Amino acid sequence: MSAPGERAAAPDAAPWRASVLTLYPEMFPGPLGLSLSGEALARGAWTLEARNIRDFGRGRHRSVDDTPAGGGPGMVIRADVLAEALDAAAPPDDPRPRLLMSPRGRPLRQDFVRELVAGPGALIVCGRFEGVDERVIEGRGLIEVSIGDYVLSGGEIAAMVLLDAVVRLLPGVMGAHASGEEESFEGGLLEYPHYTRPRDWEGRTIPDVLLSGNHAAIARWRRERARALTRARRPDLLPDDDASR
Amino acid sequence: MSAPGERAAAPDAAPWRASVLTLYPEMFPGPLGLSLSGEALARGAWTLEARNIRDFGRGRHRSVDDTPAGGGPGMVIRADVLAEALDAAAPPDDPRPRLLMSPRGRPLRQDFVRELVAGPGALIVCGRFEGVDERVIEGRGLIEVSIGDYVLSGGEIAAMVLLDAVVRLLPGVMGAHASGEEESFEGGLLEYPHYTRPRDWEGRTIPDVLLSGNHAAIARWRRERARALTRARRPDLLPDDDASR
Repeated sequence: MSAPGERAAAPDAAPWRASVLTLYPEMFPGPLGLSLSGEALARGAWTLEARNIRDFGRGRHRSVDDTPAGGGPGMVIRADVLAEALDAAAPPDDPRPRLLMSPRGRPLRQDFVRELVAGPGALIVCGRFEGVDERVIEGRGLIEVSIGDYVLSGGEIAAMVLLDAVVRLLPGVMGAHASGEEESFEGGLLEYPHYTRPRDWEGRTIPDVLLSGNHAAIARWRRERARALTRARRPDLLPDDDASR
Repeated sequence: MSAPGERAAAPDAAPWRASVLTLYPEMFPGPLGLSLSGEALARGAWTLEARNIRDFGRGRHRSVDDTPAGGGPGMVIRADVLAEALDAAAPPDDPRPRLLMSPRGRPLRQDFVRELVAGPGALIVCGRFEGVDERVIEGRGLIEVSIGDYVLSGGEIAAMVLLDAVVRLLPGVMGAHASGEEESFEGGLLEYPHYTRPRDWEGRTIPDVLLSGNHAAIARWRRERARALTRARRPDLLPDDDASR
């Protein structure tokens, strides 16, 4: 039995299932195959399949895109091609959310990550070129997700960001590394500064309070530093009544 | 000669130089070795070296981290180890900015990406564990950069995001694909919806205006759709006088 709010490592639980639809399946698992997420993959805490949208392309060249209606630069991924790829990857009753990595999407934030962690997995579409035909977004209920206000050459690395953020929070993955509760954004604040040996480095010393052994004073100092850092760098993260202090 | 504001493809120009400091050099180039960024890398539009921080580790196990002063979970990367790795990667007069991927950092946005594109390259430190000793951030002038308000298992995939966003804007990389001027965030708006063949898909049709051949009407429709989409999804991106309309 676990304490309330605690998630025990559950080796028998169904793994979190990721299916990625991409024109570059060979990019996966890539960096996700190493370190924390790679170990979790090897241990079966999550599964990853990369499916090639081009398998559903049209004609001899397995074409997946066409010129934008109304003109303009670039190419647009066809609704019919992408819908067939989606339908082959998951039946209509597959409970996983269908995500499309896109700078127009809902911003990924830590609370959104935790929502995904609590679910069975995700189907993730990686766009390329100018984007995908709007009708497949509507017709297949794709949820557009943005990892930030910048433009990438495709959705693949964005999908890796989302998956890395999710996988580290799956039960048992971080292990002894605590539950991530003292990190940035948990509690709405940026993380306080860290120090370790040596005590003196190039004339810069570790703040005395951290060496005092006074746990209450250390906790207070860290809370104050986290709040000051957040106020200075990211006042947008603070509740309104805190930002002006 | 190029028109003002235009950047010609310059094959003889010095490449944009990226040096990544990481505990997982084998993650690179990874997804950056394929598609647009991979072709640009092969063509010499940019260079990428991944350096192992562990080469500067201490003792027989080349240890790079130690427990946090003041207690708490996880491990902190040592200031002395990381400083030596940085000093070996770039002399003090190396003009490239020294970046540290960190959720506490300056948010990466498209204008920040363009600043980096205009420079000679970047030195990018990828943290792991709890973080890095605060003193090396101060002592080596590291600029903390955040790709979004979520926590990753390390800075490597975040560095890939930054590099992909930069490389696609280097001269000549997007080629015929226009200069990215009609994209999300250029002009402060999310991008308008795209459509392509077939004209009718599952009973959903392409908006008539896009098939009209009336370029002025098409441009107007797209501008209106971009504005409506931004207002609905990301009013925070609009100037204040536009958000309430």
